[in-house]
Amino acid sequence: MTDRRTAILEASARTIARRGVRGLRMDELAAEAGVSTALVYYHFKDRAGILRRTLEFITDRAGRYARGQHDTEGPTNPRELLELSLLLEFQDLPEVRENSTAWGELRASAIFEPELREELAEAGAAWIRQTTELLALAQPAATTAEVISSAERLTALREGLNARRLGGILRPEHARELMREAIEVEIAHLTTRR
Amino acid sequence: MTDRRTAILEASARTIARRGVRGLRMDELAAEAGVSTALVYYHFKDRAGILRRTLEFITDRAGRYARGQHDTEGPTNPRELLELSLLLEFQDLPEVRENSTAWGELRASAIFEPELREELAEAGAAWIRQTTELLALAQPAATTAEVISSAERLTALREGLNARRLGGILRPEHARELMREAIEVEIAHLTTRR
Repeated sequence: MTDRRTAILEASARTIARRGVRGLRMDELAAEAGVSTALVYYHFKDRAGILRRTLEFITDRAGRYARGQHDTEGPTNPRELLELSLLLEFQDLPEVRENSTAWGELRASAIFEPELREELAEAGAAWIRQTTELLALAQPAATTAEVISSAERLTALREGLNARRLGGILRPEHARELMREAIEVEIAHLTTRR
Repeated sequence: MTDRRTAILEASARTIARRGVRGLRMDELAAEAGVSTALVYYHFKDRAGILRRTLEFITDRAGRYARGQHDTEGPTNPRELLELSLLLEFQDLPEVRENSTAWGELRASAIFEPELREELAEAGAAWIRQTTELLALAQPAATTAEVISSAERLTALREGLNARRLGGILRPEHARELMREAIEVEIAHLTTRR
């Protein structure tokens, strides 16, 4: 990816996190990225193009935070990796907050911007897949169907809790606590189902 | 409430569900409601006022759908009432879909419109309270703290699943299935904790 293309995507994520998708105007985005409006159109064709690529960019960046975290903390068992992966978004680091605000906002916008749905569905499926893999490692005796359902619930819960946290009606510590308990409850459920 | 005040709130919910909060312009809202723009300002003061009152209106209407449903079906035990209450939003009736789209959109907007947070927190707390009461009836031996945590998870999961459904990346039947299983999993968790 060229530097200027990356600069535009970074500026887009920043602007969406600060003012929402409704606040994203192509000329202001160009100014924020320090490039011309023509260059934004050259790289991304139209507003829908920039929204789609921003969603992709944010998803990749979330994956990088997750991997970075793994390197630092280095948990070894699947249960700990699962906690790390599902709790990551509730950290109060500015870059994680920006990423997760922009992600939530793009997700909410998909109701009105159907061209975002494909990217959104892919990103959602990737989170479910990753969670399914870790749950299957944590609880190898559970059936695939049960593990997938648990992963769908845990990832949807994370999104629901995160929306409440970003909306300012749930404290981050409490969101983390509820998420940790949910992992415990789902793993116990998979255990009793053996 | 006067008829015209109600007509404005109905038009506001309809417009937000169709085009999002970003699509709500005071003059278009007035036209949609069949009143003058001046009357909209008279009743609601400003855009923030109309958003706050629409959130309140939608919450009340969701409560009415819920009660209407109870009268028709008449389930008797707390577990069934719990399912009914938490699955209500996943019905594919146009009026439920409109209400729940507008609710989700107002919730997502709270990140950028902090004046919505108080109403949002109240509505969220009311859903948690109602779910807590039904869970406590379904599982009287569980501690209050455990029941509240379960209710917080179930209501946040409902919001997460509903966002996916409205965004077009989760089928309504599957959302209902995941929600039903979550109720089962949380009740089993409260049972083993006795």
